[in-house]
Amino acid sequence: MTAEKGHETSWVKALFEPRSVAVVGSASPGKLGYVLIEQLLAGGFDHVSLVGPKGQGTLGVPGFRSIGEIPDAPDLVVVASPANTVESVIEDAGRAAAKVAVILTAGFAESGNGRAERAVLQTARRFGVRLVGPNCAGIVNTRANLFPTLETRPHSGDVAFVSQSGALGGAVLAWAEEQGVGFSKFVSYGNGVDLTDVDFLDALRTDTETRVVALYVETVSDGRAFLDAAARLAAVKPLVVIKSGRSLSGVRAAMSHTGSLAGSDAVYDAALRQCGAIRVAGIEEMFDLCRGFTTLPVVLGKRLAIVTNSGGPGVLAADAADAAGLELPMLSEALRARLATSPHMSALGSLANPIDLTVQGTEAGYYEALVAVLGEVDAALAIDVNTPYLDAAPIARGVVAAARATGKPVAASFMAGKTVEAALPILKEGSVPNFATGEQAVNAISRIAAWTARHEGRGRESVATRRFSWSSRSEEAHDAWGASSGPIARGPRTGACGPKSVVRGPESGVRGPESRVRGPWSAAVSEPLAQRLPWEGEGLEPEVLDWLEGEGFPGPERRLVTSASAAADAVGALGGCVALKVVASGISHKTDVGGVILGVRTKAAARDAFAKLRRIGGKGFRGVLATPMVRDGVELLVGLSRDPQFGPVVAVGLGGVHAEVLRDVALRVAPIDVAEGKAMLDELRGEAILHGVRGEAPRDLDAAARLVAGVSLLPFHYVDLAELDLNPVFLLEDGLVIGDARAVRRDAAATHERGGSR
Amino acid sequence: MTAEKGHETSWVKALFEPRSVAVVGSASPGKLGYVLIEQLLAGGFDHVSLVGPKGQGTLGVPGFRSIGEIPDAPDLVVVASPANTVESVIEDAGRAAAKVAVILTAGFAESGNGRAERAVLQTARRFGVRLVGPNCAGIVNTRANLFPTLETRPHSGDVAFVSQSGALGGAVLAWAEEQGVGFSKFVSYGNGVDLTDVDFLDALRTDTETRVVALYVETVSDGRAFLDAAARLAAVKPLVVIKSGRSLSGVRAAMSHTGSLAGSDAVYDAALRQCGAIRVAGIEEMFDLCRGFTTLPVVLGKRLAIVTNSGGPGVLAADAADAAGLELPMLSEALRARLATSPHMSALGSLANPIDLTVQGTEAGYYEALVAVLGEVDAALAIDVNTPYLDAAPIARGVVAAARATGKPVAASFMAGKTVEAALPILKEGSVPNFATGEQAVNAISRIAAWTARHEGRGRESVATRRFSWSSRSEEAHDAWGASSGPIARGPRTGACGPKSVVRGPESGVRGPESRVRGPWSAAVSEPLAQRLPWEGEGLEPEVLDWLEGEGFPGPERRLVTSASAAADAVGALGGCVALKVVASGISHKTDVGGVILGVRTKAAARDAFAKLRRIGGKGFRGVLATPMVRDGVELLVGLSRDPQFGPVVAVGLGGVHAEVLRDVALRVAPIDVAEGKAMLDELRGEAILHGVRGEAPRDLDAAARLVAGVSLLPFHYVDLAELDLNPVFLLEDGLVIGDARAVRRDAAATHERGGSR
Repeated sequence: MTAEKGHETSWVKALFEPRSVAVVGSASPGKLGYVLIEQLLAGGFDHVSLVGPKGQGTLGVPGFRSIGEIPDAPDLVVVASPANTVESVIEDAGRAAAKVAVILTAGFAESGNGRAERAVLQTARRFGVRLVGPNCAGIVNTRANLFPTLETRPHSGDVAFVSQSGALGGAVLAWAEEQGVGFSKFVSYGNGVDLTDVDFLDALRTDTETRVVALYVETVSDGRAFLDAAARLAAVKPLVVIKSGRSLSGVRAAMSHTGSLAGSDAVYDAALRQCGAIRVAGIEEMFDLCRGFTTLPVVLGKRLAIVTNSGGPGVLAADAADAAGLELPMLSEALRARLATSPHMSALGSLANPIDLTVQGTEAGYYEALVAVLGEVDAALAIDVNTPYLDAAPIARGVVAAARATGKPVAASFMAGKTVEAALPILKEGSVPNFATGEQAVNAISRIAAWTARHEGRGRESVATRRFSWSSRSEEAHDAWGASSGPIARGPRTGACGPKSVVRGPESGVRGPESRVRGPWSAAVSEPLAQRLPWEGEGLEPEVLDWLEGEGFPGPERRLVTSASAAADAVGALGGCVALKVVASGISHKTDVGGVILGVRTKAAARDAFAKLRRIGGKGFRGVLATPMVRDGVELLVGLSRDPQFGPVVAVGLGGVHAEVLRDVALRVAPIDVAEGKAMLDELRGEAILHGVRGEAPRDLDAAARLVAGVSLLPFHYVDLAELDLNPVFLLEDGLVIGDARAVRRDAAATHERGGSR
Repeated sequence: MTAEKGHETSWVKALFEPRSVAVVGSASPGKLGYVLIEQLLAGGFDHVSLVGPKGQGTLGVPGFRSIGEIPDAPDLVVVASPANTVESVIEDAGRAAAKVAVILTAGFAESGNGRAERAVLQTARRFGVRLVGPNCAGIVNTRANLFPTLETRPHSGDVAFVSQSGALGGAVLAWAEEQGVGFSKFVSYGNGVDLTDVDFLDALRTDTETRVVALYVETVSDGRAFLDAAARLAAVKPLVVIKSGRSLSGVRAAMSHTGSLAGSDAVYDAALRQCGAIRVAGIEEMFDLCRGFTTLPVVLGKRLAIVTNSGGPGVLAADAADAAGLELPMLSEALRARLATSPHMSALGSLANPIDLTVQGTEAGYYEALVAVLGEVDAALAIDVNTPYLDAAPIARGVVAAARATGKPVAASFMAGKTVEAALPILKEGSVPNFATGEQAVNAISRIAAWTARHEGRGRESVATRRFSWSSRSEEAHDAWGASSGPIARGPRTGACGPKSVVRGPESGVRGPESRVRGPWSAAVSEPLAQRLPWEGEGLEPEVLDWLEGEGFPGPERRLVTSASAAADAVGALGGCVALKVVASGISHKTDVGGVILGVRTKAAARDAFAKLRRIGGKGFRGVLATPMVRDGVELLVGLSRDPQFGPVVAVGLGGVHAEVLRDVALRVAPIDVAEGKAMLDELRGEAILHGVRGEAPRDLDAAARLVAGVSLLPFHYVDLAELDLNPVFLLEDGLVIGDARAVRRDAAATHERGGSR
């Protein structure tokens, strides 16, 4: 493992390539200490000692009463002794100059015992020992024959798997052989008291033995540090993520308008897309993508051909391809004419796409059809629906030969059970990934194609090699990220579109004694935040609009009137048709209390409206705001909130019922640039409305994107801005007007926090 | 197999319980005839003869030159001889009084040779022989040890599987053992020249050996006959359907407004839901549901508890439960207090829902937790994330014992691979279905719960037996359907809400020589259609509105004006603010050509508008329609189109951009009643808008549902009504107004068809 220079080196090397390992636990057969020794020996690692109160050895491994007694001091200590002994074990490890301890023992923060966990951490810090766990399932480095874990020992492969949950990690290891996936490394970090998601992502980024990283996470340790680490990693190798806990989004129901539209899981979803990670729904899809990424050549486009020997599964796969955004183009006349005369094509088959060879499809038939179609498409799927009287092995050989001959991505779905057993080793040997169903194959191809497209900007040439050469490009890509250039780095940039004055301030989010690599997401929240919102208490609409105009945003023409006659005068002064809105402290959602009267055209109506709004305003009444009615504006909502995990989040949606009823809102972790603002508008289901439906003129998308990007910068300049809702924003053919604005301050206590990271 | 009385009996019994079978094909080892004999003998069926040109026997089975030579005339003939011999083989079978022929031979309509296929059918009709196939994979009846198929011989079980595709059918049989699903019967009907989907659904409805029917279909033979048969079946046992060909919906892109909103796959989707079938995405989900339905007791509600020994997979399953509409209620204080003191609960675990027993979860722990929670919820999921050092068998025993003790539905997800092998037979023996992931288990539970809810109206008591007693209720349920009563029969009814004058006319959709059982869907299209639309050529808006008012639908107040001064007068006469629309032949989408001018308030503006519309109308100009502007109406779209497969289809959506951009439209095969119209409104994503958002008053949902139901009847009274678009319909707090209407006639040739079935 090639680790980075600097402080990090020591723990990474000690954890994954220790010269010797001490296990702390019971030597009795069946007990955890004993099983760990068994696993280490069975895996082929024998620089091992066992430490227990009786100093007893087992299975030929020497025993000691303390780590200090071991003549050859261990780099790595694996702790499986009772919870109340762990603190002293760590002290013992520290005195013996061990560098890392993996603590399998449970009974800490996860069961309410946070105090003991903090004590263990303090002791570790005192001696410079780094910790994995507690409450974890251990680690694996297949290349070093290192298996200090109670779980199934996995085969060697190119995938590194990092799991917050130990048990889920174990299930993945147990399922992996059946799924045809091997691992370079495995880490389960459990409670993550010290080393956690961010540290392992950084370590695996430069690990030349790892081509794909899979991550299971329930809660990230630090939203912005995670985004930085994930983005750095995803710039050089695929990062496949299972993030559970979707249904817990209800916890934020009591939050503000924009806040409740966002919901915690939606923020995670946006954040993962922003940093280039690939979110999957569950373990099976994770395996599918890992198998695809480690086996297939790059997928350079969306054009797919399907070659099958059965119509039905071909149609199911074609349906799935359509749903996943792949294209199944018609094959050229020339190609079809050529295949039609081939002796290997069944006369009963179909030469459309899917190509149906019928049950008469042979080795030569699959080979010929696949080689032919791969001259016209970007990837192919070979389906063999086998029967007991059909030998699947030759078909597999034909598929493998076509993949070799063309160098293009070919996936397989050989079905089912015993009838295709003979084919599976041939496909595996030939680097053709096999999927349980054509639908799963197609999903994997489409997600790999999307990943490739995202990275294509870095030079089609380098991507178009036979296999991704991840590791050789790691450093180059890391440099690219450091310089914040290239289309991969979708995070904040410090150019014209980025935060105006991002200053790298003092450390934030650092949990261990050593500095983490910093990235733009962390930097965005670490500058000194000097400015404060220019009003006391709750901001009323006129104050908020004035402030926004001062920041360069286009507010509406307006008059704040405090008498019925002034309201009457405003009608004519503002163009003959106005909206009148109550301005009163304590009323932040004016529509809900009848505090907005639209389309007022006469002086008499304005007087009546003023009187009504005066009553609604009650004791807090400060006046009535008159604005011209805006014609032909498409209503947008632009919002800002602070997520407990990721800090400032910006949202844009189509206004009114679109945002509220249909939840048609796009989110990003702030700040973003204008290009990302446009991408958000593209994401809306109702996006076509912005381009003009039913003969209407298209709207000024540039202006909308500039507004969203501009709003996304505000929380980095105003320490006390908690939430902002611009709703509606009227988007015109040329420009836009903010129709209403509401801002919420953070209270004094909250503003001492930095930018939302916890 | 208990078949229905009447004509049907003969083919059903001859096909599935033949006294003797003749195979027609080659006797040479490896050839199809030989393999079929092998399969029949290996399965345990030995009343077999082999027929071939040489009269050669094999494997101890006697050989003959023709079927007529066989002393004991066969009920069933299985044909695997070349395509050009099949017609004479069928004649031979007919002369020998065989009742059914299963034709495996390919090379007919599927490869362009429809003529030969029709000739085979004609010969079969002449002799009264019923046909399965051609181009099929044969049939299976496990209870009769009958396996005339080339595919994997499946284990016996309670699922009948009907597959249009032979190869997909074969793949399902090959995968079934691994998936833990056994079959009562299997039929692949290939080209379906004679017996097809409808026939097999009817036969399996009353088959006492079949508790669940699974169907793979690419195109149904006759939309309404299929709906009738599927609804009859689904009233008594679950019908799980894979319908492929979703992505072909693009073929209808050139169709009308409502037509293109519908799209062929969306109509299939609606039709399958209407008849109570359960549509699944693919083979794996089909297996999941079949396993669940045949193993679990009924699921009487949506309240689920999860008991796990690992947090991560528990959270993933909880997320899936939330997404599938299940509830994970908090368990009662009393229950948690009781469990908290149990010696079988780990002190480190969690007693929330999911209950996490941690890796210390034992047989007794699972038993105790499951029994406790099943007192408070409707179903439970037991997850065991196993490790190599943990014995899964006792945990399985605890789960099985809890399921037995409570009689409630308990599903399992034991993960993964070899670490849980010992548990699987225990779960199977204990009737606890095991799923690859907790997410799949939860999906199956939720769909079974939905199926149960749909059938609950038929008496909670009868449903609440330990296992569904499908077959004993078959006849009762069939009667219920015949009488069109009860909430199961979601199809058309002949009461106040149904077609006004559905008359059971002459047969329609009958393909074979024997009558099929008729149902309301077929009946709806079989009445004599006397009425015709009261205009020549294309209907203009005033004509269509007049006609609709004659049918009892509420059109707007309106004036058709033919001069600028009449237009000016209309402003005052219609309330001071009007919409003006061009009426001209050749202009059916007025908005697209600028032919609608809204909000006209003055005489001068009306004159200008008239002049403009006059120009737009061109040569076809017939006048300008003036209607009052409607205030505070929520816009709906109500549409009617004819689907090539299912005939008249009714659609409702929120108007304007909701329908067009967001595709937020609900569909049903027509006719429907008012209750079904309400269900359609419930389905809309933007449904909340109808209930009043932002303090607006709720709209008249009854009126909307009555309109949709009423519209759905029109094509059954007007033979030449091809399409109808009511767009917008203004839905008010009390009642509604149709704002615009467009109707398309079918041309003279098309009106000779009946109601759209082909």
